[in-house]
Amino acid sequence: MSIITLTTDFGTRDWFVGTMKGVILGIAPKAQVIDLTHEIPPGDVQAGAFALAAAFAYFPPGTIHLVVVDPGVGGSRAALVVQTRHYAFVGPDNGVLSLALDRDQIQGIRRLENLRYFLQAPSRTFHGRDIFAPVAAHLSSGVPLKAFGPAVPACQRLTLPNPVLVRGRWGGAVVYVDRFGNAITNLGAETSGGSGSSGRVQIRGRKGPIPIRSHYGAVPPGRPVAVWGSTGFLEIAVNGQSAAERLGLACGNPVWLTIHL
Amino acid sequence: MSIITLTTDFGTRDWFVGTMKGVILGIAPKAQVIDLTHEIPPGDVQAGAFALAAAFAYFPPGTIHLVVVDPGVGGSRAALVVQTRHYAFVGPDNGVLSLALDRDQIQGIRRLENLRYFLQAPSRTFHGRDIFAPVAAHLSSGVPLKAFGPAVPACQRLTLPNPVLVRGRWGGAVVYVDRFGNAITNLGAETSGGSGSSGRVQIRGRKGPIPIRSHYGAVPPGRPVAVWGSTGFLEIAVNGQSAAERLGLACGNPVWLTIHL
Amino acid sequence: MSIITLTTDFGTRDWFVGTMKGVILGIAPKAQVIDLTHEIPPGDVQAGAFALAAAFAYFPPGTIHLVVVDPGVGGSRAALVVQTRHYAFVGPDNGVLSLALDRDQIQGIRRLENLRYFLQAPSRTFHGRDIFAPVAAHLSSGVPLKAFGPAVPACQRLTLPNPVLVRGRWGGAVVYVDRFGNAITNLGAETSGGSGSSGRVQIRGRKGPIPIRSHYGAVPPGRPVAVWGSTGFLEIAVNGQSAAERLGLACGNPVWLTIHL
Repeated sequence: MSIITLTTDFGTRDWFVGTMKGVILGIAPKAQVIDLTHEIPPGDVQAGAFALAAAFAYFPPGTIHLVVVDPGVGGSRAALVVQTRHYAFVGPDNGVLSLALDRDQIQGIRRLENLRYFLQAPSRTFHGRDIFAPVAAHLSSGVPLKAFGPAVPACQRLTLPNPVLVRGRWGGAVVYVDRFGNAITNLGAETSGGSGSSGRVQIRGRKGPIPIRSHYGAVPPGRPVAVWGSTGFLEIAVNGQSAAERLGLACGNPVWLTIHL
Repeated sequence: MSIITLTTDFGTRDWFVGTMKGVILGIAPKAQVIDLTHEIPPGDVQAGAFALAAAFAYFPPGTIHLVVVDPGVGGSRAALVVQTRHYAFVGPDNGVLSLALDRDQIQGIRRLENLRYFLQAPSRTFHGRDIFAPVAAHLSSGVPLKAFGPAVPACQRLTLPNPVLVRGRWGGAVVYVDRFGNAITNLGAETSGGSGSSGRVQIRGRKGPIPIRSHYGAVPPGRPVAVWGSTGFLEIAVNGQSAAERLGLACGNPVWLTIHL
Repeated sequence: MSIITLTTDFGTRDWFVGTMKGVILGIAPKAQVIDLTHEIPPGDVQAGAFALAAAFAYFPPGTIHLVVVDPGVGGSRAALVVQTRHYAFVGPDNGVLSLALDRDQIQGIRRLENLRYFLQAPSRTFHGRDIFAPVAAHLSSGVPLKAFGPAVPACQRLTLPNPVLVRGRWGGAVVYVDRFGNAITNLGAETSGGSGSSGRVQIRGRKGPIPIRSHYGAVPPGRPVAVWGSTGFLEIAVNGQSAAERLGLACGNPVWLTIHL
């Protein structure tokens, strides 16, 4: 019995996700299908990659992660299955898998070409249902990686902008805004000076630095605070409110971090 | 072990759907409950019927499809269980099951009247929890169809407007707008001249015809395109954007299709 | 095999809920994880408590209810596991469990302090993933209550405002507005004169009384109606429309009920 997670930009208001689950359970009746999220903004490959990278390693080894954020569906982009040391990934070759792949050891990549593991007469607009779901289900049922198609040496990579160290300060950017309005940056605890709670953050073009604290409630309600968040990256928050709304933050905003050692 | 799918207009922000699952698992602990969607617009029987019809056949035979889009809850409309050749359906007799039933062979219809298979003291406002969920669970546990109530010869039908052929053009209408803003018409590949990718579509009151192509990305970003979509119907899309927003499309908009043979 | 329900304010657009499920399934592979809702308004402890109280008892005995509406995460509030006669509850000690606990018999409360049952190096911003999910999973796997930490005599209580009887009328308030715009009051069938369908409701500052009827469709479309709803409380609705929008209702609005005996 294995787990198959789903990460898509399909939303939940139509029948798309449910239909994929029907296809999976028809092929692999014992699979456990778990929704990671279906609310990736339509076609936003970076957001999908970030969500997957933040979550995949919390699942037990052997989990199959199926990702469909696929603005190029039906075109020339390849469809892939990737085996890593602990997991398998199925999705389009557009970079959406790559931030997760960066964090595990790739053992093999295959291009999905064997029609035997697709639904019959696959559409050119819904590969989630017709190609990716059945492939993930067959993989979960024990079909070996090599059966799905030819080996591929590498896949598309997506890179988050790297933090830069300039005159003692780390410069980075907001890369994700979550449901609470917390702005997650690309400043990682490992790469940008440790997760110490002593330091401050400056958002370009805005007043006064924001203090780093251990948790959101360490400042009074309504006050900005920066924390080393649960993804391992520095987050900018406002206690009890949306930092994105209150501070006008969005993906791409430059951020400067000063650590006090 | 059987699958029970749920299609409702309950949304997911309250406890309604979760409660139905609790009731089902209390009666049929081994049932797999799968969400088709809970975001049918409140009371929109046609949208519910369309979603169910688009998805039900992708589930394995034996699946029980439970549908609650039920603006007449507590009134005089009947509650039904319908056995078809491959599936069973449970829901109100208001047409919401009928587009799916049109695509499978009905073997029996029963009116839900046997109180033994309802929760005790069912409310008159939440039959999803008190009647439909327990009936689907008992059905999944092996209770025979005839136990639920008297046979009924037929049920309410809903019909999508039929495409019409006028002077060599098929006239139809938009019948569903999906999460991506794609406008799905009632022009089916089987009924309206095949799924060839040669042809064009004219939306009444708008400029220039829209070309039929094999997939969304076959036109430049931001350009309109018509494709034979994954539901088997012609869809009007805009590559990378919402056709509903860009072209001002909504359910009911008339559409004319010219096929080039 | 046991059921673990999830009630949070995490929404479903990020990876938070999916990650919790991964953690649970890594520890308790046979657990069935069921979403109650993740759309509790951020930090709204009362709404979370109300949703849990409305739903928990519809699950089979032995179900573990995991609740994370936790604006004080990382601060000094305690984290708890509570065993009641029929269920177990896991969540922060901020009152979010209390309306449910009021309806079952508490047999033991433990403060979550045993790091052995947390993820390693728990964050201070995502206890749902790092503390509550693993504890619920270990509990589901048979770890005894006492293993999680020291006994606690009581937990934080939340009380809905009590209805008051003044000159033959019951005075109450709207305490929850659901997805359909129905306004649920704190006037319970048991406490406020029975669930008879004879009577009327007056909303302070608005014209004309609203009649009590047995179901929404007992009045013409677009007309207001009060019903004894599926939670056991009086609801104010408008047939086929949103009462919240049409009548301008929100949480806290005073309501007067006159029962005709």
